[in-house]
Amino acid sequence: MDRFSFNQATAKHWPLPDVIAGCAAAGVRSVGLWREPVASFGLARSAALVRDAGLTVSTLCRGGFFGADDWLDDNRRAIEEAAELGAPVVVLVCGGLFGRSLPDARARVAAGLEALTPYALDAGVRLAVEPMHPMFCADRSVVASLDGALALAAPFPAAAVGIALDTYHVWWDERVFELIAKAGAEDRIACFQLADWCVPLPADVLVGRGLPGTGHVDFPPFLRAVAAAGYAGPIEVEVFNAELWSRPGPEILEDTIAAYLACAAS
Amino acid sequence: MDRFSFNQATAKHWPLPDVIAGCAAAGVRSVGLWREPVASFGLARSAALVRDAGLTVSTLCRGGFFGADDWLDDNRRAIEEAAELGAPVVVLVCGGLFGRSLPDARARVAAGLEALTPYALDAGVRLAVEPMHPMFCADRSVVASLDGALALAAPFPAAAVGIALDTYHVWWDERVFELIAKAGAEDRIACFQLADWCVPLPADVLVGRGLPGTGHVDFPPFLRAVAAAGYAGPIEVEVFNAELWSRPGPEILEDTIAAYLACAAS
Repeated sequence: MDRFSFNQATAKHWPLPDVIAGCAAAGVRSVGLWREPVASFGLARSAALVRDAGLTVSTLCRGGFFGADDWLDDNRRAIEEAAELGAPVVVLVCGGLFGRSLPDARARVAAGLEALTPYALDAGVRLAVEPMHPMFCADRSVVASLDGALALAAPFPAAAVGIALDTYHVWWDERVFELIAKAGAEDRIACFQLADWCVPLPADVLVGRGLPGTGHVDFPPFLRAVAAAGYAGPIEVEVFNAELWSRPGPEILEDTIAAYLACAAS
Repeated sequence: MDRFSFNQATAKHWPLPDVIAGCAAAGVRSVGLWREPVASFGLARSAALVRDAGLTVSTLCRGGFFGADDWLDDNRRAIEEAAELGAPVVVLVCGGLFGRSLPDARARVAAGLEALTPYALDAGVRLAVEPMHPMFCADRSVVASLDGALALAAPFPAAAVGIALDTYHVWWDERVFELIAKAGAEDRIACFQLADWCVPLPADVLVGRGLPGTGHVDFPPFLRAVAAAGYAGPIEVEVFNAELWSRPGPEILEDTIAAYLACAAS
């Protein structure tokens, strides 16, 4: 359990104070938080709540969306919020095409990282470029593979820019274990998230992920590869699943812990 | 128009004789056929119909599915059918996990290609491994990238095993143009198909492709890359789209030709 982190998006409708209290009561040491619920509850209040419960924040989701008009201000705020929460990482969902060609949209991400690097270094918060599943390439993340994420991170100090590794997004990649090793060698693994790939995909493909063990990802090789790559940080479970979300928060947490422990033991 | 080929799956419900007559009347020189409608109409009758209309068959879809019990017999039949139709290429949809781990399922594809190579060489028919979009990795094709397809093809003679390049499946890949050049240098491009990526994805993601120009793929760079890679064969338009399928065959053909010509001219 030492390394387990509960990403609050797994229980999307569970109020933040209940997530914190529930995690603390269950012996969870770390949570992944999202900016919207933190803003709703209040940033300072959220930070105090987490601290008072003896928890740490593994990641703050999310920055990115470099095609949005206010991307610079918004990402600077995300970095500041992470610093206040004591979160070492802001996960970046880098945004889709937003009317540009794919190479131009990717160049926009590179320019965004360059602009944000000084703020990240100054705040001691790391930006984690998340390669998302290629089915999100047009509308959510033009960063569509680990290879692409590592290339985007390469020009910047590892303390400022890393990658977010989520099994759901990269499990299909023929080169995934080679690229995880490369990411480790370059000290780019900023966070590690587990979610399973379930078929058939639901009508809204965004919310069809599964708890580890319910789909087609073979987790033990990922855990071994990430350990061999030198990553020893938190392992988050972050699952977007409409059915799971419909259940009571405590049940979701219980099942998530069980799924994580089954994975970690295998 | 010389290089345009109409894949009959674009007008799924148009009877085979009507597809052939319609294409001949429209000045189309080549068609991509599917095994099921060919079998329904009769293999010899289909071959005669195509020949009498002065058309050629660019590809036969599909072989593959190496996880199926009868994969060897079925793929041998696909090769024989292609030979009888005068189709130089059988497109392989290599199948999903079928209960195996991803590395094992990929090894099964490699073993399948090894077993089929002598038959392909003997028949003068090329097997085209189709890298499919990674969202199909679990249930349809464990070959999820051009890189993976080229690695699978590499051990075998180029006359026996190539790759099927479909914009829909590979457009997101950060390395796509580098890999197209590699495929050309290794003489592996067995066929080239155009389809567009449209969002949001429909409830059944299999049938949400669009005619070129209706989605997010930037086609001119693909046409240039494939030409630069030395491929001078047919360019098929193959679109699975429920709305398109609901329309009369002649209209679908007309719109497909217009979409192709707009692409080719740009």
